[in-house]
Amino acid sequence: MTVKQLALPELVEACARLGVPAVGLWREPVAAYGLEATAKLVRDAGLTVTSLCRGGFFTTADSLDDNRAAIDEAAALGTDALVLVSGGLPPGSRDLVAARERIADALAVLAPYAGERGVRLAIEPLHPMYASDRCIVSTLSQAMDLAERFPASQVGVVVDTYHIWWDDRAPAEVARAGAQGRIHSFQLADWVTPLPAGVLTGRGQLGDGAVDMREWRERVEATGWTGYIEVELFNDGLWARDGVEVLAETAERFAGEVF
Amino acid sequence: MTVKQLALPELVEACARLGVPAVGLWREPVAAYGLEATAKLVRDAGLTVTSLCRGGFFTTADSLDDNRAAIDEAAALGTDALVLVSGGLPPGSRDLVAARERIADALAVLAPYAGERGVRLAIEPLHPMYASDRCIVSTLSQAMDLAERFPASQVGVVVDTYHIWWDDRAPAEVARAGAQGRIHSFQLADWVTPLPAGVLTGRGQLGDGAVDMREWRERVEATGWTGYIEVELFNDGLWARDGVEVLAETAERFAGEVF
Repeated sequence: MTVKQLALPELVEACARLGVPAVGLWREPVAAYGLEATAKLVRDAGLTVTSLCRGGFFTTADSLDDNRAAIDEAAALGTDALVLVSGGLPPGSRDLVAARERIADALAVLAPYAGERGVRLAIEPLHPMYASDRCIVSTLSQAMDLAERFPASQVGVVVDTYHIWWDDRAPAEVARAGAQGRIHSFQLADWVTPLPAGVLTGRGQLGDGAVDMREWRERVEATGWTGYIEVELFNDGLWARDGVEVLAETAERFAGEVF
Repeated sequence: MTVKQLALPELVEACARLGVPAVGLWREPVAAYGLEATAKLVRDAGLTVTSLCRGGFFTTADSLDDNRAAIDEAAALGTDALVLVSGGLPPGSRDLVAARERIADALAVLAPYAGERGVRLAIEPLHPMYASDRCIVSTLSQAMDLAERFPASQVGVVVDTYHIWWDDRAPAEVARAGAQGRIHSFQLADWVTPLPAGVLTGRGQLGDGAVDMREWRERVEATGWTGYIEVELFNDGLWARDGVEVLAETAERFAGEVF
């Protein structure tokens, strides 16, 4: 998504050229290119698929069927992580507690289905500014409380710096998630202001904002976690530029800011 | 601030006509009209000043002097609450822990000064989307942890629905603050999306958004709290309208949504 301006073959080629060994994919471009064609493309390039984004949005009526499809797609792509964004409040509702409980109900149906296919559901807490309309799971604590109702082989969490950097409880929750083997995805984006209208496309390039990337990496790795780190930048400015250039810049920042 | 388009005499007159018994004031319009003149204006109208906004911004160099001045102004206006917004990260810093500790240092200097003048400092947690540039105190839990280092007669917190509605820990923190007599100000605004660019001026009119106003009032009053409830809407749309009309609408919503 950081370089969504690149078609999948361009992305795969640029990753190979830059030495990027793994990539997180989104369902829409995969569907557009074709699921089997994408699986072959990344397999032939020796590229690991870190995660598929995204399932969730449990407040819509047909969400279970759509999430089963997403799990199947993740399995076909050879990734073991399907990122879940819960969805916001149901239309007209102000009941956060009930909406959060509905997520647990959906997970109870989907977690075994995912586990049987070698896919783990990764609950992503989104920044509280998305609580009403995109994701009522706003903290890593809430995500872990939900995840812990299920086996770690079936349900875990996403640690994304953009969403949790401000939270003084997040470091302890990272430790809790890591100790249980529930960190299924670790994503980086920097926090920059002013936020754009709609607050969706203002994620900062690594090093441009308020987040100490190295500290977060060390925090996650201190739990014993090893894995690929994703960089997920929704940013109108980056999307308007040449995708290969943005990918190269991101790889450079990754080397300089995270390590 | 909800009707900042009204000059202070217009505001006072409209409050009297609508039966609004109390008002929260901001420093800038008070300074423009004159401190003593404002004090006389509200006193003659029999209007209670619920709070003065705002002190804080402890990351700037001369903040202590400015906060002492704000405390003096609050005392002159006859209000016992000075709302404090902490300020964000110091320029170039990514150290949230150190910045939060600096707030405690400033409070240690200011709290006795305030207490001697019959003014209490009210720490306002702002929504986490303001953490980097306006207020690193993002939750009621953090505000209470800071406040508890000082006597309740000197330091308390602001409960503002706009900033804390999403937080599953906030109800317990309201109970904690209420039990200690530390709820110095209770403010209402609704959460509506999409957020505008800069995310400062998109607070919703009561009833327009995701927040259950009645539930929050009951929650605060369940602690034994009695006091005036402020409605604080930063909203470009409301500011563009006739101020008296907006005040009347707000009073109507207050009656219908909060009680």
